[in-house]
Amino acid sequence: MTYLKLAITVAALGSSTPAFAQDDFSGTLKARQGQFQIMALNLGILGNMARGRMDYDADAAQAAADTLVAVSQIQQAPMWPEGTDNAAIEGTRAQPTIWAENADFLEKWAGFGEGALVIQAAAGNGLEALGPAMGPVGGSCKACHDNHRAPAN
Amino acid sequence: MTYLKLAITVAALGSSTPAFAQDDFSGTLKARQGQFQIMALNLGILGNMARGRMDYDADAAQAAADTLVAVSQIQQAPMWPEGTDNAAIEGTRAQPTIWAENADFLEKWAGFGEGALVIQAAAGNGLEALGPAMGPVGGSCKACHDNHRAPAN
Repeated sequence: MTYLKLAITVAALGSSTPAFAQDDFSGTLKARQGQFQIMALNLGILGNMARGRMDYDADAAQAAADTLVAVSQIQQAPMWPEGTDNAAIEGTRAQPTIWAENADFLEKWAGFGEGALVIQAAAGNGLEALGPAMGPVGGSCKACHDNHRAPAN
Repeated sequence: MTYLKLAITVAALGSSTPAFAQDDFSGTLKARQGQFQIMALNLGILGNMARGRMDYDADAAQAAADTLVAVSQIQQAPMWPEGTDNAAIEGTRAQPTIWAENADFLEKWAGFGEGALVIQAAAGNGLEALGPAMGPVGGSCKACHDNHRAPAN
């Protein structure tokens, strides 16, 4: 059991606060908010190329698109425990509708995954292919934010 | 360009601070620290099962393992820009060795990906298969932390 113990210890060390501490959702919030930051970072790369603010680079575009697909394969349930909506805790804009209308939320999350595959198929094929391919992901982000994320301030 | 504009706007809205704001690495830190929180969350699930603190569930174990593999496919470079080590900025334990010995850092990151595949192949095959399969990931976490992460405090 030495290796197992090591893995568990390392996992625990990985978070400055234990992910399972009761009523302390700071690790949970960091995980799910970090996920969206990874998406924003890579959409930013693709968007900057598409708008001509950064030179188009097929390899860099593909890597960003592949990352979006990878993020879409992260299981969501453990990052959205009950009691982590913006009516229950500070530090989140996640609305209670995420839990009350969970099927809708998950459908919009699935839409992100489908859109990421569209970008992945196009990203390496030149700038003219990239721009239009970003549409479905943009639509899925907006649809979910409109329904399930509180406005900033 | 309507869809494209939408995607870019949504990407920008996704972060409370723009990922590319000069000298503001808060989004970058959130992204990469969130990544490790996602890893810790899913390693925690697997570790709790392996230690008997949570009932073993093949589907849940597989979902956690698949998530580790997905995280290993996230491109790392954009989350580790120069100037984001713990000698340069607050809020990180990332040591300058990550950049000075980048090949070593990336080798250890690749080791995580290889270890995640080992867990993925075993996770659904029962509790006795799961425990030993966690060893390589545990080893890769520890190896990277020992060399490239500053101690807490």
